[in-house]
Amino acid sequence: MSTTEGDSNLIDGKAMAAEIRGEIKEATEKLIEEKGVTPGLATVLVGERKDSEVYVRMKKKAAVEAGFNHFDVKLEDTVTQEELEAEVDKLNNDPQVHAILVQLPLPDHIDEEAVLEKISLNKDVDGFSPQNIGNLAMKGRTPVAVPCTPKGCIEMLKRKGVKISGARAVVLGRSNIVGIPAAMLLIQENATVTVCHSRTQNTKEIVQEADIVIAAVGIAQYVKKDWVKEGAVVIDVGINSVDDDTKKRGYRLVGDVDFEEVKEVAGLITPVPGGVGPMTIAMLMQNTYELACKYGGEEEKKE
Amino acid sequence: MSTTEGDSNLIDGKAMAAEIRGEIKEATEKLIEEKGVTPGLATVLVGERKDSEVYVRMKKKAAVEAGFNHFDVKLEDTVTQEELEAEVDKLNNDPQVHAILVQLPLPDHIDEEAVLEKISLNKDVDGFSPQNIGNLAMKGRTPVAVPCTPKGCIEMLKRKGVKISGARAVVLGRSNIVGIPAAMLLIQENATVTVCHSRTQNTKEIVQEADIVIAAVGIAQYVKKDWVKEGAVVIDVGINSVDDDTKKRGYRLVGDVDFEEVKEVAGLITPVPGGVGPMTIAMLMQNTYELACKYGGEEEKKE
Ligand SMILES: NC(=O)C1=CN([C@@H]2O[C@H](COP(=O)(O)OP(=O)(O)OC[C@H]3O[C@@H](n4cnc5c(N)ncnc54)[C@H](OP(=O)(O)O)[C@@H]3O)[C@@H](O)[C@H]2O)C=CC1
Ligand SMILES: NC(=O)C1=CN([C@@H]2O[C@H](COP(=O)(O)OP(=O)(O)OC[C@H]3O[C@@H](n4cnc5c(N)ncnc54)[C@H](OP(=O)(O)O)[C@@H]3O)[C@@H](O)[C@H]2O)C=CC1
Repeated sequence: MSTTEGDSNLIDGKAMAAEIRGEIKEATEKLIEEKGVTPGLATVLVGERKDSEVYVRMKKKAAVEAGFNHFDVKLEDTVTQEELEAEVDKLNNDPQVHAILVQLPLPDHIDEEAVLEKISLNKDVDGFSPQNIGNLAMKGRTPVAVPCTPKGCIEMLKRKGVKISGARAVVLGRSNIVGIPAAMLLIQENATVTVCHSRTQNTKEIVQEADIVIAAVGIAQYVKKDWVKEGAVVIDVGINSVDDDTKKRGYRLVGDVDFEEVKEVAGLITPVPGGVGPMTIAMLMQNTYELACKYGGEEEKKE
Repeated sequence: MSTTEGDSNLIDGKAMAAEIRGEIKEATEKLIEEKGVTPGLATVLVGERKDSEVYVRMKKKAAVEAGFNHFDVKLEDTVTQEELEAEVDKLNNDPQVHAILVQLPLPDHIDEEAVLEKISLNKDVDGFSPQNIGNLAMKGRTPVAVPCTPKGCIEMLKRKGVKISGARAVVLGRSNIVGIPAAMLLIQENATVTVCHSRTQNTKEIVQEADIVIAAVGIAQYVKKDWVKEGAVVIDVGINSVDDDTKKRGYRLVGDVDFEEVKEVAGLITPVPGGVGPMTIAMLMQNTYELACKYGGEEEKKE
């Protein structure tokens, strides 16, 4: 079904992401040299959520390492809707900014949908706008940016030489940011796709039919060994914390797949952490680079 | 699995469409009386394709019967891109027009995508714009209009009391106008959905698992009896002409399902003609009515 590295069936997302980020760094040097465009990523962080701070820090680090400009917008969690939207608008109008990422979730008093809609289509690096998702779903249309996490899943399959066309793929989960766009991407790659969710009956039997499984449900170690067909490729998007007294911080992170069990039958499998997570950040860098290539010159010329 | 009329497992799309059009006619009388808004549907026909002329005539007839205003725009097939877009823009700016339908296909020299994009989102009665398809795909968003043919399929299931939630549904075809939006609607109704297309392997075995089959492939009598699970509900979207010497015109219309065979095993089945076709027109009337309700008052007030 697929190529493997050494005798391991592990997909090392961390190594693959590092490789991609290396490629982007090189391409960025060229872009700067030849076109005078330096990709610019702006991150907008509201409030002081620890997890959001960690994510933004990782994204900033990756951007700087790739040779991008990084624009760090930090706002108090007392910010008003108007103030936040005005900040986004400032970034929309800044020709040095090619990509705008508003870290979610936003505080409860903020209308998240309205903020995301403020982002210019050509700077929507997460690709979460309805228009972009529509272009992703429709044959013959091209989205401005493909959402990073599902894009990372497909990129892993491709780089490991997994044959997607004609394969049966099962996506567990139907969220706007992972499940639905992952299903659309797989359909475009000519897989035969089944989408499961909390109302699905016989999820186990459906997963058993799959050559490719993408798990994005948010339930720790949900997918078991006897659900997975021998040789199937398993991409685990889930990030769940479970109590663990042996750890200093009292918990550890696990995926939506029972990794220790399932790795015995899977043809290829991603670990958590070190699988889809690092790929998501690499894809954010790729999207930023691509937006800078597509719209960078123009924007700066307009000045 | 479902209720049936008499001892027949036939879904009479013609009768159901007539019922719906009756409901819309009544609701329209009320809308005119209470709000002073008469739903207005504009059809734009370019050139002299016989089939397109028939479709537009049927839509016009249905609109007039429902008590709508109908605006009949007919253009030579020598019309330029600019002229056609200008016509659409005129309709966009006409407060009496609540719904704009551009009959497809357009002549080869016309950029179809650009014309469709010209239609105001709030008058896009077919719902084919990327933004609308995105809103259809995303949880928590509401499209302005649901594309008529897939909407008609779901409406048939609902009016026949078919339990969609938790059912396994298989959609054959992944076009922008039928397959993909049908799959999205079924997912939203909590079905477990598999999308098949020309690259799918073992289509027969996949269809055998389905409680609900929606066939939209454009291949005459493609789905056979031994593909269909006893009691499954089969919705046939296909319209294909096959040679038939016993007919005066030399051909007859058949669906994508081998109706005579499959009706022996299906719990419910739609015929062709007289199934999805009439429902598509009824849904066009429903969409027009709904656009007039949502945006009609406002537009006219602005005058
Ligand atoms: N690695 C990364 O970079 C990222 C990881 N994640 C992780 O991925 C996971 C999913 O995230 P997200 O999509 O945002 O989550 P959501 O909570 O938005 O969606 C979860 C989905 O899983 C479905 N679901 C729930 N229970 C079941 C079940 N028993 N069987 C099948 N499906 C089920 C839900 O169905 P229903 O719609 O019926 O409720 C829903 O569609 C989380 O663990 C999250 O932390 C998310 C984003 C990025
Ligand atoms: N009743 C009504 O009101 C309407 C009826 N129709 C009819 O519905 C049918 C489909 O229309 P439309 O969606 O526009 O057609 P398209 O030609 O746009 O799409 C056909 C789809 O069927 C898929 N397909 C082709 N061969 C197979 C196969 N062997 N197995 C499974 N899938 C296959 C194609 O796959 P791939 O993507 O791989 O090419 C494609 O996705 C037509 O007969 C059309 O006349 C359409 C609109 C309205």
